[in-house]
Amino acid sequence: MEAVFIGSGSVATHLALALKEKGVTISQVYSRTKSNAAALADKLGTSYTTDLSEIYDKADIYFYALKDNSFRSTLKSFDLPDAIHVHTSGSISMSEFDGIATKYGVFYPLQTFSKEKEIDFSKIPICIEAINADTQQKLLDLANLLNSKTYLISSEQRKKLHLAAVFACNFSNYMYDVSSQILEEIGVGFDILHPLIMETALKVQSVTPYKAQTGPAVRFDDKIITKHLHMLKNRRDLKKIYKLLSKDIHKRHKKI
Amino acid sequence: MEAVFIGSGSVATHLALALKEKGVTISQVYSRTKSNAAALADKLGTSYTTDLSEIYDKADIYFYALKDNSFRSTLKSFDLPDAIHVHTSGSISMSEFDGIATKYGVFYPLQTFSKEKEIDFSKIPICIEAINADTQQKLLDLANLLNSKTYLISSEQRKKLHLAAVFACNFSNYMYDVSSQILEEIGVGFDILHPLIMETALKVQSVTPYKAQTGPAVRFDDKIITKHLHMLKNRRDLKKIYKLLSKDIHKRHKKI
Repeated sequence: MEAVFIGSGSVATHLALALKEKGVTISQVYSRTKSNAAALADKLGTSYTTDLSEIYDKADIYFYALKDNSFRSTLKSFDLPDAIHVHTSGSISMSEFDGIATKYGVFYPLQTFSKEKEIDFSKIPICIEAINADTQQKLLDLANLLNSKTYLISSEQRKKLHLAAVFACNFSNYMYDVSSQILEEIGVGFDILHPLIMETALKVQSVTPYKAQTGPAVRFDDKIITKHLHMLKNRRDLKKIYKLLSKDIHKRHKKI
Repeated sequence: MEAVFIGSGSVATHLALALKEKGVTISQVYSRTKSNAAALADKLGTSYTTDLSEIYDKADIYFYALKDNSFRSTLKSFDLPDAIHVHTSGSISMSEFDGIATKYGVFYPLQTFSKEKEIDFSKIPICIEAINADTQQKLLDLANLLNSKTYLISSEQRKKLHLAAVFACNFSNYMYDVSSQILEEIGVGFDILHPLIMETALKVQSVTPYKAQTGPAVRFDDKIITKHLHMLKNRRDLKKIYKLLSKDIHKRHKKI
């Protein structure tokens, strides 16, 4: 099986490397930026191009791992070869391929990637959507090759899934960031919170977040909440977050 | 060494069991609620009381693992024996023992506890504060016995540390809860987010949350943010959180 990667960011890098390891031939890498294209091609021992008109046209599958903004313009700039075309995005609808390709779908790994950090695809859910059963099976085969968990997720579902991921990943990370800012003020290293953060994430692997909720807001402990808000008097931004989230947690757990 | 536990909640349970395993004799358990007192005493193979006037007075150390609200009233209701007295709370000042005891301090394990889930104390930071050097050393010895990481944290620092923990644990858990609510709407099980949540927590064990921040807000991706806000049009509470956090993330990462 031959694959081409359009894009050279974190998702492209990890996915291409993982597929290569499982015997898929990565025939070419495309990126607008020469250094990025060259870096990934080098890692994969393959060739690269920065010119869409030079995209290798004999591959079986084309992965579009691009920023959402550049996806549409890239698609429009060249004739898609007659093969399977999939993008890897949580927020782009599959229908973007309508009328441009015939066999297409989505291959969305639901994970946060960093270029430096190794990724174990056997622990990553792959969300699959396809225009027909044949393409769907091919995408399932690929995900199985990576030992990933596979989920059939429609474009409508995927949009909301992506939104849920923003809360579960981006916003929870911002909560960590806020806590690190508070620790900075008192001269305590962030490592003191490492075990708490791990345990909080671990807990919801076995119980629902609703059941796992602890803290002054769920206990309706007004005294502590008032003290905390007072401590944040010089940080209006954080005070606002504290107030809003406490109110919402309280509301969600209030027995009516 | 003999210890008495005043309180029978999660912290008391885990701490008493861990100390017992390391050879500390737990001489007695007190709780206002008989069934709780009996349950913990049974686990520890020791006696219990629900009457403060019957507290065993020959122990070397008394642990107060009580809800913040009941702490003060409990302290006032009996004569503290001449021993070391420590509470385990993040939000109570050490000075609450002023004038009541002579050797006292704080032994605050910075972790989220559930009664059912086993806890490995070697991975838990213990925040220690003491009224004098001798007491401090005894508390350090105890924490070392548990192989815990020890931190000397003043009452002033501890208050803010507790506030930071609310963000890192309670509020990040609420972000998980929100994501689970969104998934419910589309009929997708929460397990699809398990790996993402673990990876997000793992990432900040090695890089700062500031550096680990990803998502539409940090990329200033207005298009996706607008789409997400639109998807939340029937959930005004979640829309408000999304807007506020995105704005703050954007602000924090804006290059001026």
